Amino acid sequence: MKVLVINAGSSSLKYQLIDVSSKEVLAKGLCDRIGIEGSILKHTKSGGDPVIHEVSLPNHKVAIKEVINALLDKEIGVISDVSEIDAVGHRVVHGGEKFHYSVLIDENVMQALKDCIELAPLHNPPNIIGIEACKNILPDTPMVAVFDTAFHQTMPKHAYLYALPYDVYEKYGVRKYGFHGTSHKYVSERAAEMLGKPLEQLKIITCHLGNGASICAVSGGKSMDTSMGFTPLAGLAMGTRSGTIDPAVISYLMDKEKMSIKDINDYLNKQSGVLGISGVSSDFRDIQAAAEAGNERAALAIEIFCYRVKKYIGEYAAVMGGVDAVVFTAGIGENNPLVREKSVAGLEYMGIEIDLEKNQVKGKELDISKPSAKVRTLVIPTNEELAIAKETVAILSK
Amino acid sequence: MKVLVINAGSSSLKYQLIDVSSKEVLAKGLCDRIGIEGSILKHTKSGGDPVIHEVSLPNHKVAIKEVINALLDKEIGVISDVSEIDAVGHRVVHGGEKFHYSVLIDENVMQALKDCIELAPLHNPPNIIGIEACKNILPDTPMVAVFDTAFHQTMPKHAYLYALPYDVYEKYGVRKYGFHGTSHKYVSERAAEMLGKPLEQLKIITCHLGNGASICAVSGGKSMDTSMGFTPLAGLAMGTRSGTIDPAVISYLMDKEKMSIKDINDYLNKQSGVLGISGVSSDFRDIQAAAEAGNERAALAIEIFCYRVKKYIGEYAAVMGGVDAVVFTAGIGENNPLVREKSVAGLEYMGIEIDLEKNQVKGKELDISKPSAKVRTLVIPTNEELAIAKETVAILSK
Repeated sequence: MKVLVINAGSSSLKYQLIDVSSKEVLAKGLCDRIGIEGSILKHTKSGGDPVIHEVSLPNHKVAIKEVINALLDKEIGVISDVSEIDAVGHRVVHGGEKFHYSVLIDENVMQALKDCIELAPLHNPPNIIGIEACKNILPDTPMVAVFDTAFHQTMPKHAYLYALPYDVYEKYGVRKYGFHGTSHKYVSERAAEMLGKPLEQLKIITCHLGNGASICAVSGGKSMDTSMGFTPLAGLAMGTRSGTIDPAVISYLMDKEKMSIKDINDYLNKQSGVLGISGVSSDFRDIQAAAEAGNERAALAIEIFCYRVKKYIGEYAAVMGGVDAVVFTAGIGENNPLVREKSVAGLEYMGIEIDLEKNQVKGKELDISKPSAKVRTLVIPTNEELAIAKETVAILSK
Repeated sequence: MKVLVINAGSSSLKYQLIDVSSKEVLAKGLCDRIGIEGSILKHTKSGGDPVIHEVSLPNHKVAIKEVINALLDKEIGVISDVSEIDAVGHRVVHGGEKFHYSVLIDENVMQALKDCIELAPLHNPPNIIGIEACKNILPDTPMVAVFDTAFHQTMPKHAYLYALPYDVYEKYGVRKYGFHGTSHKYVSERAAEMLGKPLEQLKIITCHLGNGASICAVSGGKSMDTSMGFTPLAGLAMGTRSGTIDPAVISYLMDKEKMSIKDINDYLNKQSGVLGISGVSSDFRDIQAAAEAGNERAALAIEIFCYRVKKYIGEYAAVMGGVDAVVFTAGIGENNPLVREKSVAGLEYMGIEIDLEKNQVKGKELDISKPSAKVRTLVIPTNEELAIAKETVAILSK
């Protein structure tokens, strides 16, 4: 089965056409600057070089049409008829409390997605526009929505509720939702396969460390807790996001810096994190280079980032009553040996010991633990597109 | 040596006269409603019944004068001359980054205390007024300031810095300070004595669970991290405080409930925590009674409270690379077997196992672990007044 995976942002749209049985990516690409001057389509056929078309993309509908044209193209295309696309899997950021699983999209689902806009005002509207554009161009192709939040809907109430007056949960749905669910689910399943044990019997801590970063306690294949919260701002220090702070800092800064609450949201989301501490960059490669050149604040940013990862590993072991495996994934988790080493340093008492040689691995699946370690530490590249494609097939075959 | 311990609030002043060598409390009491109609002095002589005087207390200076009068009184007093008060120990909430230890109060210290007002606008001004009133009435008696924050000044930078732009630390001192330091220090020292081991060799997690609550990682007698932050709002769910939330919740609630940032601060400090969740009370005895009577939200409040304690125990074990003892103290920690049991349930994997019989203890020092437990779990009543009195003597004998 060939599944077209769509990840629509406000002015961009990423896609992959995946043959799910062979796991092969037949083609992938990106529509950028949708609705903005200078828009482009970047398309790569499996085994080929990227091709960049400067093409007018006034809206998402035109963008989808151009994606289909590229897929059908005699030179750069990979299919000869749109009927070869068996299904479309759409990434949707926020499914609120309505969606515990991926879902076949129909009119009721569309309405429910719109009801979730208030919870993710930046992310859900472009996701919805992407789905509508797709339905317009491919009216007869089944479409599935795969949510970043759905995997975390198994969290118990004492984990997802904040210690706020109860009516803000009832009236407004203010609670922890968690994100990166597709990735946490995918790598925890891969971990079970690598360990040759049933997922149902494993306690796994999955560390999705990218520009956005979150950690998840996965017990018996179910999310029990996760570090992001009501929004993706909470938890770890990230590229530009503060993660958790004392909530009282907000009023203090508003007063001192004469900022509005909107300014503060921008400040915490876009100017904080390792960028804010280091003053160098939000990219770990730049920060690490600066630290190696003697920049103390860059070194401090790395320390803070890894310290928080370590704290969550301890916390989630406590949540699950122990841990069998720790998984590192996403851009930093897959590719940064220093971050992995610092994040587990001193955790020998709980059975975590890594082999510093094996820890040099980048972007490949590997058990980097010492043979004697009671807890396995694994590097597993995430593949959210493949996970979405597989989810799509699973939903359709139900 | 007899030390008068003073804890001055905005409209109240608590005091104890302690004989430090015998650890005996000679007399203690409370001036309440200072500057408000209906003010009282409640005084208790060791071994006697409380005596309540309705007395005009227009300001803290008059209050201190009335305290001295009570201590000198032929009937309810315990000294015959003010010269018998060898020193005064003042509790001060916030010492900023200036005070790593308790300090003998002189003019420079008074100025430094005033410089810290901005960091603790509600707490430091009454502390300072209390000191000035005392100096006025007892001009020749040495006075020592003992800070809630000082014990935590050993935290490493990667533990106390938020992932915010670095200049908010440099310009405004926005960082984690931590509170309840006198209590965390006192019970960690007592724990070492109970275990018969040098404090320098121990890793201890101290859980100060009262209406305000915080947890501290104490390694080798030094605070390495603690759950409160820039203010006492952060960390655990408390009686009426939210503890940690996703910072993005604030703007969402301001928008939905049309609250100002000042309203939000009140909301998070006074209407949240276990009171907000349960809707019953901020007092654990009330909440527990309601839960036992079938109130689901009261039961949920207890679950959330204990769940967060458990998470910090896991987190601080990771921070220290293991743990030798967990200490429960303060109102809830000393007296609530249910909270202790739930907070360590499932932590057998890290060597924590309590004896459910011993765990019934209330308000007494006891090792409540099973004999086989690798990690000792201790109940230790805190005694901040005695700790302040001992600190005062220690500073004076330097």
